[in-house]
Amino acid sequence: MSNVLRQHIEQISPLTDTEFDHIQSYFTEKKLRKHQFLVQEGNLVGHEYFVVSGLLKAAYFNEAGKEHIIQFAMENWWITDYQAYVNQTTANLNIDCIEASTLLCLSFENKRKLCEASHKMEHFFRVKATSGYVASQQRILSLLNNDAQSRYEQLLAQYPSLFQRVPKTLIAAYLGVSRETLSRFSGK
Amino acid sequence: MSNVLRQHIEQISPLTDTEFDHIQSYFTEKKLRKHQFLVQEGNLVGHEYFVVSGLLKAAYFNEAGKEHIIQFAMENWWITDYQAYVNQTTANLNIDCIEASTLLCLSFENKRKLCEASHKMEHFFRVKATSGYVASQQRILSLLNNDAQSRYEQLLAQYPSLFQRVPKTLIAAYLGVSRETLSRFSGK
Repeated sequence: MSNVLRQHIEQISPLTDTEFDHIQSYFTEKKLRKHQFLVQEGNLVGHEYFVVSGLLKAAYFNEAGKEHIIQFAMENWWITDYQAYVNQTTANLNIDCIEASTLLCLSFENKRKLCEASHKMEHFFRVKATSGYVASQQRILSLLNNDAQSRYEQLLAQYPSLFQRVPKTLIAAYLGVSRETLSRFSGK
Repeated sequence: MSNVLRQHIEQISPLTDTEFDHIQSYFTEKKLRKHQFLVQEGNLVGHEYFVVSGLLKAAYFNEAGKEHIIQFAMENWWITDYQAYVNQTTANLNIDCIEASTLLCLSFENKRKLCEASHKMEHFFRVKATSGYVASQQRILSLLNNDAQSRYEQLLAQYPSLFQRVPKTLIAAYLGVSRETLSRFSGK
């Protein structure tokens, strides 16, 4: 299981066995069943999560109860309510399991210590944060340009296997379009 | 002038004089007049820019010629076409000066070398990238929720002095609303 994390980190920062043993000591494992919540609105967000297996979504419910999906996360992806995690405050998002999931949990304090102890891990997380920032800027651009089709194509490119695993209503909630509009892009 | 950069870095990573001398050797200075372009669509993006003084905007022009503003940058802010910079490809954005600006330029290769040579700078850029990611996620949420007023309030909180310096038509192009809708929020 921890091989999944090691391979993921080594795509950016190659590690020795000793280094990886040290790194994995900062993580704890968590298993959730389908429909269980990882983060709930109003609770403190103490951890960031690496997905070893499974599938989750991070969503915001507006005042009218409409669900907006901020992020999906499958194998090799990281997820949390980042605003709450970074500021160590309570969640505005709900994160729940679309499939049963196995996660590796990294507390805010352990992430700080790990990055301080390991320049390689500071580098790894810098590269990941930069990629996340770049992807978010592209999503903002397509939202400003009201270009739902390009958001659909970005999502398809980013997570090609997602479309087999996620109900179309959730894909529509991520894209910010109706289920009917989604059908026009996807042909089903 | 370089004191501006030093104070900015030291908000996250305190430095010795020797460390700062080393860091600033990776940067070159650039001065632009009002209306000049820093980045133009179709050109290679070799640098990230720290704003010492002045004000710039990064914008995308869609097929109909409508301008969407992705980012403003004033003193102590960083700007570039990040997707092009990170992937070392050509720009999709145009970045130009709303006011005459003085910039410190960091090439992609120099940023890599600087982060490799200095764990403190790797940490600094990890923190900045994470903050950028978190702010982008909030902007996505308000775009999905079609909540222009919250985008207006976020922008006002993020850049309180921007509203004295930027024409209202540009603020509207950042928020993704018409000039008329903006008047309803801002009262002018």
